[in-house]
Amino acid sequence: MSDTMMLVHTTFPDAATAKAVARELVEARFAACANVMAPCQSIYHWQDGIAEDPEVPVLFKTAIPLTDRLCARLTALHPYDVPVIEHWIAHAAPPAIAWVHASTGA
Amino acid sequence: MSDTMMLVHTTFPDAATAKAVARELVEARFAACANVMAPCQSIYHWQDGIAEDPEVPVLFKTAIPLTDRLCARLTALHPYDVPVIEHWIAHAAPPAIAWVHASTGA
Amino acid sequence: MSDTMMLVHTTFPDAATAKAVARELVEARFAACANVMAPCQSIYHWQDGIAEDPEVPVLFKTAIPLTDRLCARLTALHPYDVPVIEHWIAHAAPPAIAWVHASTGA
Repeated sequence: MSDTMMLVHTTFPDAATAKAVARELVEARFAACANVMAPCQSIYHWQDGIAEDPEVPVLFKTAIPLTDRLCARLTALHPYDVPVIEHWIAHAAPPAIAWVHASTGA
Repeated sequence: MSDTMMLVHTTFPDAATAKAVARELVEARFAACANVMAPCQSIYHWQDGIAEDPEVPVLFKTAIPLTDRLCARLTALHPYDVPVIEHWIAHAAPPAIAWVHASTGA
Repeated sequence: MSDTMMLVHTTFPDAATAKAVARELVEARFAACANVMAPCQSIYHWQDGIAEDPEVPVLFKTAIPLTDRLCARLTALHPYDVPVIEHWIAHAAPPAIAWVHASTGA
């Protein structure tokens, strides 16, 4: 059993959207779990200016082979035209990795 | 002096448990610090279904040589049978790394 | 176009300071965006003891070539003598990376 998983992180405009998309992706086994975080305040470049808006970050945990499919589906479901969806590899103990794989069928 | 540290991230069922475990691990010098985050809402696979529960994420920062000991002790203290404890390497400036090593005695 | 960006994470003593520094760094194009998170509770080593204080985490997203400049400017603006500013590489889809580069002029 591998000792790595993929963490996938993005932000949504509000909690309801974040939870609905997170639930759909977990139910469809693209991810083992999703942590829908407390709202944050995002400051960002937008059309030659600086915008500031509330957003809701979400951290997904999935099996590495599912990364591209999770990110593709998340992009399709995301309300932004260009969602910033970043992912990076993390290590974890074999029982946790086994749970991620069992949860996603990977 | 190295320019890398280990970030260790997990979630707890509630803030009191998160803080108690975080404090014990920092006091025992397994980690230099712990950020006990605002509560999140977790959506996850559980016994052939989808569960949704409040959780509290915690981000620990430690010296790389202490990673396995931190994760082992965190697993022992964690109330879940199979806690998902993920870790990844991050870079930081030498003074910050020196503080992490001095705080943990690594 | 690259498929990687840099995530830069640190904590501030309060939301006002976090937002002011985040806005200055985004306006100066050191970062494409900054997520000023909900307050957390930090437990950490401080002068031979353990301290616990509220803090505000911020996650910056920038182009990899700007990492050192962002971290140097962030260190200069940060109110702590030794801020812990950690960064790690993340992957993202080309449109998101293009937005990060366009926003920072990298």
